[in-house]
Amino acid sequence: MMNSGFIVPRLSFIIRMKALYFDGQLGLRDVETPRPGPDEALIQVVLAGICGTDLQILNGYSSFRGIPGHEFVGRVVECQNTKWIDKRVVGEINISCGECEFCLWGLGRHCSQRTVMGIVNRDGAFAEFTVLPVFNLHEIPDSIPDEAAVFVEPLAAAAEILEQVTIRPRMRVAVLGDGRLGLLVAQVLHQERAQVMLLGRHPWKLDLAHSWGINVSGLGDEHLTKRNFPMVVEATGSPAGLEEAFRLVEPRGTIIMKSTFHRPAQFDTARLVVDEINLLGSRCGAFGRAIGLLEQGRVKVDQLVSRTFPLEEGLAAFDFVKKTSPLKVLLQVAPA
Amino acid sequence: MMNSGFIVPRLSFIIRMKALYFDGQLGLRDVETPRPGPDEALIQVVLAGICGTDLQILNGYSSFRGIPGHEFVGRVVECQNTKWIDKRVVGEINISCGECEFCLWGLGRHCSQRTVMGIVNRDGAFAEFTVLPVFNLHEIPDSIPDEAAVFVEPLAAAAEILEQVTIRPRMRVAVLGDGRLGLLVAQVLHQERAQVMLLGRHPWKLDLAHSWGINVSGLGDEHLTKRNFPMVVEATGSPAGLEEAFRLVEPRGTIIMKSTFHRPAQFDTARLVVDEINLLGSRCGAFGRAIGLLEQGRVKVDQLVSRTFPLEEGLAAFDFVKKTSPLKVLLQVAPA
Repeated sequence: MMNSGFIVPRLSFIIRMKALYFDGQLGLRDVETPRPGPDEALIQVVLAGICGTDLQILNGYSSFRGIPGHEFVGRVVECQNTKWIDKRVVGEINISCGECEFCLWGLGRHCSQRTVMGIVNRDGAFAEFTVLPVFNLHEIPDSIPDEAAVFVEPLAAAAEILEQVTIRPRMRVAVLGDGRLGLLVAQVLHQERAQVMLLGRHPWKLDLAHSWGINVSGLGDEHLTKRNFPMVVEATGSPAGLEEAFRLVEPRGTIIMKSTFHRPAQFDTARLVVDEINLLGSRCGAFGRAIGLLEQGRVKVDQLVSRTFPLEEGLAAFDFVKKTSPLKVLLQVAPA
Repeated sequence: MMNSGFIVPRLSFIIRMKALYFDGQLGLRDVETPRPGPDEALIQVVLAGICGTDLQILNGYSSFRGIPGHEFVGRVVECQNTKWIDKRVVGEINISCGECEFCLWGLGRHCSQRTVMGIVNRDGAFAEFTVLPVFNLHEIPDSIPDEAAVFVEPLAAAAEILEQVTIRPRMRVAVLGDGRLGLLVAQVLHQERAQVMLLGRHPWKLDLAHSWGINVSGLGDEHLTKRNFPMVVEATGSPAGLEEAFRLVEPRGTIIMKSTFHRPAQFDTARLVVDEINLLGSRCGAFGRAIGLLEQGRVKVDQLVSRTFPLEEGLAAFDFVKKTSPLKVLLQVAPA
């Protein structure tokens, strides 16, 4: 293969593709295949995951219009830098300016000029092809199958907590919410040897966490001592979770907030001030650590897939997520 | 003087005293003088300060009944440990169990069993005499006059920020609120060489801060760049201050919350999570650092006293505070 700097034309004959498109309604459409710019790659999506944020986008979050989807694994099919061709990749979802203070600190995910794949002003991965800057790509080692690699983005969000606070071995941490994110957060903290208590409302999800050696209990369990956790992670997706977090956190403790609610939350500021609580927002994380956790087998994701739909049945997949509160639902876009 | 361990009976003939008493209404009363226990001291109050929390108590905060007042300087008149007799003292306001985890960590101000002088289940300093455990007392060096010593408690609350976060020289910090606490916080951060911007609504208070070399601006000033401060201290006493803090803090920045509102505050949790903001409650602080700051002349408090009333005119003093939004108002209880 020539490494001449010219665009490799392998798949440029594919000019139309199938995609889920949101313009107030989600629908399957036949759209133009995107073209990669000079520093970008065209990626054939293999698997994509449906995330809580995708559901919120359908409810109006970030006023997004276009192709949603930001959890994916795929294969590079076109790129000026030919060393990427055919590589199996995942991609960081914030596309930043590369020049501001945050970008220079390596925190491009806080760049004020950023677009966000499938969330803010940029098409995402619920499509046969997607485009990302080469800068955003991470190659996936052969030891990680597609079904695990598609978890790199949400696992990085869970592991972001480790970039923000120090987890001491045997530290008592309550994780609120037994959904996809809560189960990943609980595992990430458990493998750091924190003493994790996962609180949820779904016995079968709690049983799963219990099988990994994580302590579990019902959300709102009155038997749990109040103000007894130095750290609480709120991942319920509901403002009620924040109240429960305040009930459980000890004075001078930290509440890490993972949920983005679509409406404002109220809280008792007197409790925050008098008990000197630290309320810390936490979002996306760096992918390197997440890939490492999967490679080393320190986090299990194979039991987290509830069902896989073909892209063409994307609307049915979203219905399934809304109606059955499953764990992760995937879209199979291309054959593995 | 005998140092025999017996109670020194010097002032035990004083069995009644004047005090401001709150039972739903604030009134001047003639009440029984408290008796110190074995590890306590009876203190003749010289000067006491009226704090925002005292106003909130009058509005129902903490359902307090009794003698309010928690900022004071006085002289020990009775104590089993006779080395304290005649000493000029201030006192830490949280009276803790001394045995729980927090007490053993030196954080008795977070002890769940604590009473709080003039705030929670314990009489305070708006009286001729008050009682505190010897453990809570700090002797005041001769170089600090009474009019400065009475600021040790609020100054310790301002300096608590230094115990919670690292202030780097030239770090941009916005302090919201030009009241008593805001002016102390701005000075504490300024002397740590932070680049402080004090935002308030009272030109004469802002002028005072400006005379100390602190940058000032109007609260809500639209010219201030949004999301441009790595740290914002909220000391306005109003939920609107929290909104302004969110407007000014940069991604990954810290909002330190000093105000306790008597009603719940709303905030945009999506902003907290997406920008990974750290919202940190901050309350009382250790007295040692505050005494040091006054002794070294690093914080100015002499210009912070708006007016001094005799204890007997306590009701008029409270009216003056409510009506004129002054800086500190003091009650002169005993002659200096």
